[in-house]
Amino acid sequence: MPDTAAGFARRPENRYGNRPTMKDVAARAGVGLKTVSRVVNGEAGVTPDTERRVQEAIEALGFRRNDSARVLRKGRTASIGLVLEDLADPFYGPLSRAVEEVSRAHGSLLINGSSAEDPDREQELALALCARRVDGLVIIPAGDDHRYLEPEIRAGVATVFVDRPAGRIDADVVLSDSFGGARDGVAHLIAHGHRRIGFIGDMPRIHTAAERLRGYRAALEDAGIPVEDAWMSLGVTDPERVRRAAEDMLSGPSPVTAVFAGNNRVTVTVVRVLAGHTRPVALVGFDDFELADLLRPGITVVAQDPARLGRTAAERLFQQLDGSLVTPERIELPTRLIARGSGELPPAD
Amino acid sequence: MPDTAAGFARRPENRYGNRPTMKDVAARAGVGLKTVSRVVNGEAGVTPDTERRVQEAIEALGFRRNDSARVLRKGRTASIGLVLEDLADPFYGPLSRAVEEVSRAHGSLLINGSSAEDPDREQELALALCARRVDGLVIIPAGDDHRYLEPEIRAGVATVFVDRPAGRIDADVVLSDSFGGARDGVAHLIAHGHRRIGFIGDMPRIHTAAERLRGYRAALEDAGIPVEDAWMSLGVTDPERVRRAAEDMLSGPSPVTAVFAGNNRVTVTVVRVLAGHTRPVALVGFDDFELADLLRPGITVVAQDPARLGRTAAERLFQQLDGSLVTPERIELPTRLIARGSGELPPAD
Repeated sequence: MPDTAAGFARRPENRYGNRPTMKDVAARAGVGLKTVSRVVNGEAGVTPDTERRVQEAIEALGFRRNDSARVLRKGRTASIGLVLEDLADPFYGPLSRAVEEVSRAHGSLLINGSSAEDPDREQELALALCARRVDGLVIIPAGDDHRYLEPEIRAGVATVFVDRPAGRIDADVVLSDSFGGARDGVAHLIAHGHRRIGFIGDMPRIHTAAERLRGYRAALEDAGIPVEDAWMSLGVTDPERVRRAAEDMLSGPSPVTAVFAGNNRVTVTVVRVLAGHTRPVALVGFDDFELADLLRPGITVVAQDPARLGRTAAERLFQQLDGSLVTPERIELPTRLIARGSGELPPAD
Repeated sequence: MPDTAAGFARRPENRYGNRPTMKDVAARAGVGLKTVSRVVNGEAGVTPDTERRVQEAIEALGFRRNDSARVLRKGRTASIGLVLEDLADPFYGPLSRAVEEVSRAHGSLLINGSSAEDPDREQELALALCARRVDGLVIIPAGDDHRYLEPEIRAGVATVFVDRPAGRIDADVVLSDSFGGARDGVAHLIAHGHRRIGFIGDMPRIHTAAERLRGYRAALEDAGIPVEDAWMSLGVTDPERVRRAAEDMLSGPSPVTAVFAGNNRVTVTVVRVLAGHTRPVALVGFDDFELADLLRPGITVVAQDPARLGRTAAERLFQQLDGSLVTPERIELPTRLIARGSGELPPAD
């Protein structure tokens, strides 16, 4: 490799210390500092010949404008931040990509980070992004108290919450109708003859988990079916916990004939548990997921539209930045029941 | 909501203009600017009583240290950047999460962005992250010329490429054995009696796609099977293109009896195509994916370990930052063939 950087020495003791500065550019081009500044910032008052000399010096030295300095001077950087819950949950893939596409269409760079469902980490990340002077934040909140953002919002950082509402502050939020979606999904199972229906969901402090549980209860109440404690299990969505919850519901003194799964992580594990059972058990899951239609039976789901959630949230963020929005709103997107077989199985007993 | 920020006015015309400054804190606490600076930076020489007064003023005003200023002053920020290829490809989920976990263990914030497989966008994003003074970059490259990074590397930015090698610079790279994995997968199909095997892969300019094609050719050559052009299709991995490629191979004058799919996006579409065919066709896919084992037949795959790729890359990045690495290396991780049924089907004819 003749043209590689094999000779680059790594100098951890002198990080950034040897970056070329505007002064270096000015010296090499034989012009004043103000002239370099004009060229870098695209200002008038430089002859084409001088501009060419400055550009050549910039090129030769590998000078890059320091955006940190620029941000301080101009108070403005073209970037927005996205605080995710989990980088590895496929639900957030299309949501992130939609936020990125809207951001890009507005000439803005998207930078992401993940809270890993930890409220402290969410706060640390959101404030770190603010300290890096993002224009706005799209947040999938892990915590339920967002008063820490008040100084940032007051200072002009646009803020939109998505998937779950903000806690203790008044902010834009874009989310799916978790209550209505879960109620419809459970009513679907009831319409197919089920009376003993289990619910396995995420931790009860998570808004969507609580709302979906409320929808489950409402559907049973609407049908005059008393709810049994043994049919409900909320907690972390790791496969071990969900597997135990499902096995318990399927094997107790009054085993369930159907399961409503509170999100895609839960559904995938329940599918695995049911694959090992001989007795058919009906299943409806909240969230669609890849290949749900190719399983046998296909998995009936209450689908959200994660790309639309992301797009709507990002568009509101840029409307805030335009100054065209003044009052925070709650935007609730509908869900859609997709029947594929697993939710239409009759009770086995 | 009695304690919300309902009264917050959004002032797009005055972004950041009304942030409290150290001067405001000094005025409120009745101390000098230098004293506030000492408290903010944790320096000695402040009495406990004065420190308390300054902290109260910071609290009351919602003052936050401006990290942009800090970065300029100290030349150091605890953050690393990750340039992804596609936010919505599930392959990158565990990889990103692993990079984040290593980053967190080193007290560093991870910020991500995606190139969407566009070399210009990769460059724009990588340089924007450098301008925001990340200590290092983990890059899944979209382009094949990374000389634009030379000034950054020279200035001390640690750089590790992952999944695909850097182009025209000498840099650390961590990747899977795409050539060997594909050769093993195709040899597996040959061992089950197949002689007419199709290959559907990503765009040929992508390193992994080219390497996997090379592995496919090598396996056929090893078995003395002449390769036909009609059996090979490389291009974008969107479902329409892949579907057409698969249909063509399955319906020509010498239809294939088996398909080797070049990555998880291709495999998922081929599974859909084969689900609509009555004649069984064998399939081995590069990359494992969720639910591959629950399909009927289960999908035989050549599995990479994306979490290990991410972890290894991030660990090397922090070793570079420690100063404990001086010579760029290429680290190749092995793949693993997982037989589940689809790759063991005999030829249908």
